[in-house]
Amino acid sequence: MAPGVPRSGDAMFASVEHVNVEIFTLTYGAIVRQLLADLEEVEEVNKQLEQMGYNIGIRLVDEFLAKCNVLRCVDFRETAEVIAKVGFKMFLGLSASVTNWDAEGTCCSMVLEDNPLVDSVELPDTCQGLYYCNILSGVIRGALEMVSMKTEVTWARDMLRGDDAFELQVKLLKQVPEENPYKDDE
Amino acid sequence: MAPGVPRSGDAMFASVEHVNVEIFTLTYGAIVRQLLADLEEVEEVNKQLEQMGYNIGIRLVDEFLAKCNVLRCVDFRETAEVIAKVGFKMFLGLSASVTNWDAEGTCCSMVLEDNPLVDSVELPDTCQGLYYCNILSGVIRGALEMVSMKTEVTWARDMLRGDDAFELQVKLLKQVPEENPYKDDE
Repeated sequence: MAPGVPRSGDAMFASVEHVNVEIFTLTYGAIVRQLLADLEEVEEVNKQLEQMGYNIGIRLVDEFLAKCNVLRCVDFRETAEVIAKVGFKMFLGLSASVTNWDAEGTCCSMVLEDNPLVDSVELPDTCQGLYYCNILSGVIRGALEMVSMKTEVTWARDMLRGDDAFELQVKLLKQVPEENPYKDDE
Repeated sequence: MAPGVPRSGDAMFASVEHVNVEIFTLTYGAIVRQLLADLEEVEEVNKQLEQMGYNIGIRLVDEFLAKCNVLRCVDFRETAEVIAKVGFKMFLGLSASVTNWDAEGTCCSMVLEDNPLVDSVELPDTCQGLYYCNILSGVIRGALEMVSMKTEVTWARDMLRGDDAFELQVKLLKQVPEENPYKDDE
């Protein structure tokens, strides 16, 4: 088993429930710096951060469902609202607003006006293509995939690039029907 | 300025004060995996984690002194107690006990019986030389250096190696006298 991969089924995170945001922000900064030093292309760093987030997202879902008492969401629209309002709140201490729905209800934006990952961070000119918070898009994609929704998550606005907010566009590509555990009995 | 390095003097971390421990633990796990993938030797991973921690430690000190209302510590003994009892509590939500003082008061152990970094983590046989939590030794060394104490911080016990607790040995190498700002006026 890979190191750093918590075993499933364990009583995770039993005693400590929160850590101080400073240590989280600085630890995340250390990851980004490490990737920038290791990888040649900023585009590769974006990809790697997204992949890390994806791996985290598929793990967080269980904790989330176990703790937040959310009933099964009926559709993508409801799921997006729960992630933005309950998920962000539980894990990052802030909530996002969901806007810009398309007519089909398969594409929306999650807007963050605050973001502990970037507190006091500024990017040098050499990193202008970097999506510093790309771990977040991965977390959302991973979490949604675990509830059978394949999505594409991209940045529409980024305060580190001079925008007035962080805006993630979340697009539902495919909803995989969950298997019916009783289908053999029908 | 390097990306991910918060500017000093900023109003850091204004609105969110805590994040959920799961996301911190999984994010830290992602760093360790990344370093293991990038670097050939486990010993190099230990070094890199320590260096990341050092960079975090020299940043955390300001926040710590600003928030915790600790008066100037008189000596290494008092400083170690404050780090173990107040610092660990503030940043990781738990406190450490300080034991095993030598006669000179220049070497002690900080013992952690809980550690959110390793919740549900186990190491494969290929990583037996890894100090998974080595970021913590770096944080302590960095923080102490900012208050003029050069130290060496090493692991005496590690639960991921089968020990019954985490024990960091902190050894004071040199106490740099702080400059007297009025010396030219004397």
